[in-house]
Amino acid sequence: MFSDIDQLMDRMGYDALVVYGESTASCPELAYFVRTAIPRGGIYVKKKGAEPLLVVSNLDLGCAKKGIVSTVKSYGDYGLRSLQKRYGPGRAFAELLTAILRSEGVSGSIALAGRMDVVQSVFVVDFLRRRGFRVAGSAKPTIVDLCRRTKDEWEIDRIRDAGKKTVVVVQKFEKVLEESKTVNGKVVFDGSVLSTNRLKKMVRVWCAEEGLSLVEGFILAVGPESADPHYVEDKDTVISEGEPILFDIYPAEATGYRYDFTRTYCVGRPRPLLRKMYQDVLDAQQTAFDAIKENIPCEVPFTRVCQFLRSKRWPTPLDREVKDRGFIHGLGHGIGLSIGEEPYLTRFNRSKLVLGDVVTVEPGLYQPGFGGVRLEDVVTVTASGFTVLAEHRKQLEF
Amino acid sequence: MFSDIDQLMDRMGYDALVVYGESTASCPELAYFVRTAIPRGGIYVKKKGAEPLLVVSNLDLGCAKKGIVSTVKSYGDYGLRSLQKRYGPGRAFAELLTAILRSEGVSGSIALAGRMDVVQSVFVVDFLRRRGFRVAGSAKPTIVDLCRRTKDEWEIDRIRDAGKKTVVVVQKFEKVLEESKTVNGKVVFDGSVLSTNRLKKMVRVWCAEEGLSLVEGFILAVGPESADPHYVEDKDTVISEGEPILFDIYPAEATGYRYDFTRTYCVGRPRPLLRKMYQDVLDAQQTAFDAIKENIPCEVPFTRVCQFLRSKRWPTPLDREVKDRGFIHGLGHGIGLSIGEEPYLTRFNRSKLVLGDVVTVEPGLYQPGFGGVRLEDVVTVTASGFTVLAEHRKQLEF
Repeated sequence: MFSDIDQLMDRMGYDALVVYGESTASCPELAYFVRTAIPRGGIYVKKKGAEPLLVVSNLDLGCAKKGIVSTVKSYGDYGLRSLQKRYGPGRAFAELLTAILRSEGVSGSIALAGRMDVVQSVFVVDFLRRRGFRVAGSAKPTIVDLCRRTKDEWEIDRIRDAGKKTVVVVQKFEKVLEESKTVNGKVVFDGSVLSTNRLKKMVRVWCAEEGLSLVEGFILAVGPESADPHYVEDKDTVISEGEPILFDIYPAEATGYRYDFTRTYCVGRPRPLLRKMYQDVLDAQQTAFDAIKENIPCEVPFTRVCQFLRSKRWPTPLDREVKDRGFIHGLGHGIGLSIGEEPYLTRFNRSKLVLGDVVTVEPGLYQPGFGGVRLEDVVTVTASGFTVLAEHRKQLEF
Repeated sequence: MFSDIDQLMDRMGYDALVVYGESTASCPELAYFVRTAIPRGGIYVKKKGAEPLLVVSNLDLGCAKKGIVSTVKSYGDYGLRSLQKRYGPGRAFAELLTAILRSEGVSGSIALAGRMDVVQSVFVVDFLRRRGFRVAGSAKPTIVDLCRRTKDEWEIDRIRDAGKKTVVVVQKFEKVLEESKTVNGKVVFDGSVLSTNRLKKMVRVWCAEEGLSLVEGFILAVGPESADPHYVEDKDTVISEGEPILFDIYPAEATGYRYDFTRTYCVGRPRPLLRKMYQDVLDAQQTAFDAIKENIPCEVPFTRVCQFLRSKRWPTPLDREVKDRGFIHGLGHGIGLSIGEEPYLTRFNRSKLVLGDVVTVEPGLYQPGFGGVRLEDVVTVTASGFTVLAEHRKQLEF
């Protein structure tokens, strides 16, 4: 959590943390440390044990000062204009960073975090190293990943808020299914056939009404399309009676915190295979819930779900031959300012669940040519086990 | 443009281009080269003069194959599972990249592009270098920036489409202003006072209806708030008669291409200062339009606008003392899969405008305590000068 940063720097051997992003919207690392929206981003500098400094474009001083960093300066304070004139805009950035680090007396091992085109990162890092700075890399999870992993209470509140709003959208979605009927094998709503694009447009409007932003879209896949867990095509498909309708939505609330939620439905009587898949996924999710608690290695709930689904005769990632049928993805991932972060509930992740972890629990089953079923809720690990952040019923048939 | 990549590699001395992103939504560089949405991103590998290879998660094979790269493989094909088992998830990524580069016979100078947390970039690049790969950095603009800069015809079509949809939203916005009246100095619409949050909610719904995504929000600032060019606060402000209403919107259409559009309005009679600022900005934009053509250095339209506004007694970036009053930002920037890319119409940018450049032209004037005026359109540079991609009237008073 936020207050862990000095301890993490100490433990990982960093004397300074520098976080850069072109905008807070495109850089969750920067957004996390500044806690305000900065359109053109900035450079955050924190020496171990000291108060941080934030340097932004002159244009962004107003919004930068609305965040939690109390010392905010502008690029102009470090001579950006003359650096641009002398070196051109590209090299000026590396020179500016050097000027800021020197002015702040940064020395020792530096974690340079945030988002940059890698080509530019290589240039900047080589540049800083030639000037004597010790820029240290690390494999993921990085220091910022670890700091962001366990959520503070106020972050959980934001995620819960995103969840509540998501559930409002889901309720409207279910109401459409409830009010639909089937005519000649097709699903009909309000006098005309219900298609994916028609439903998608409704979802986009409902999200807008709730102030939710669909930063990376959402998944609505029906029938055989739903056998692809990441179906993203824009094709307009008419929804048929009894076939799976898989709806996976991962929007952001105003400050960028995300929720992630999946249900699978059908209108009219489901085929026996769909009913079996649904029941197995429901039981798999319960198996995961039974395993989630403090101090359990992240891979354990995943492995238990695999073992359960294997007992139901589905291929899982424990089997070498798993491909596109059965349980074919991880069990879950952390969410926060991004839609995929620590901790990952996947195989070989021996890191233990801790209080404040916020993860998705999303088992799924897929049958090529037929369709898929996935159920997903977000939980936070608590002293008594876990809590679902936005409760909502699970009902297949409408 | 897209077909320039081999020539750019040759000119910049790269033997291979590798582009990595965690998702196409968060990595315009990857989105550009694969031309499809891939939720978990992937690794794109292109040797100079050869066809590219794309490697993705097993889960994303379906969507990856919908893109323009014809050879798509999965991480599993390069032994990801055993690498994860042996090295853990973090180092496994660097090992995977090594395995892919070796298997493809990549040698010589490598441009490693895309988006990664810089801490991880440093680890990966150091790792590859220790294994004998020559990973070369460059200041911005990078090879990918240069390739993406001049747009192909189909990209301009996407941007124009985003523009048309944006104009539909703007027309609805203007209709609300048109149908508003003033009562006791406040703007009233449909029986109740018009506030920024009420208008913002309408804008979000209109965008959703058009299939536009507000990836980084939008700006609606009224009265003194509009003196901050990047006003982002969430405060609900009641709109008053005659004060500036600054509306800046930069949404993405379905494939991620952006538009960027700003108008400034008022309801009721504007104050004389607002009228003067509006006229000066309008004339400044015309001054820019008069300067924009092929082969003109990017800084020229900017400098001309500064000179014009200086003649109108406004401070500009040509003056050392410019701060928060006058023309206080650049004239424009490229747009495409991002909302800020090459070419930048700013000082010291001596790069010349070329056919296919797509840039915003957005002069603005700001008066602290009073408000701001900005007008923005997107143009593409053509053989005959330039074309505005989505024409729309400019009218201050409603």
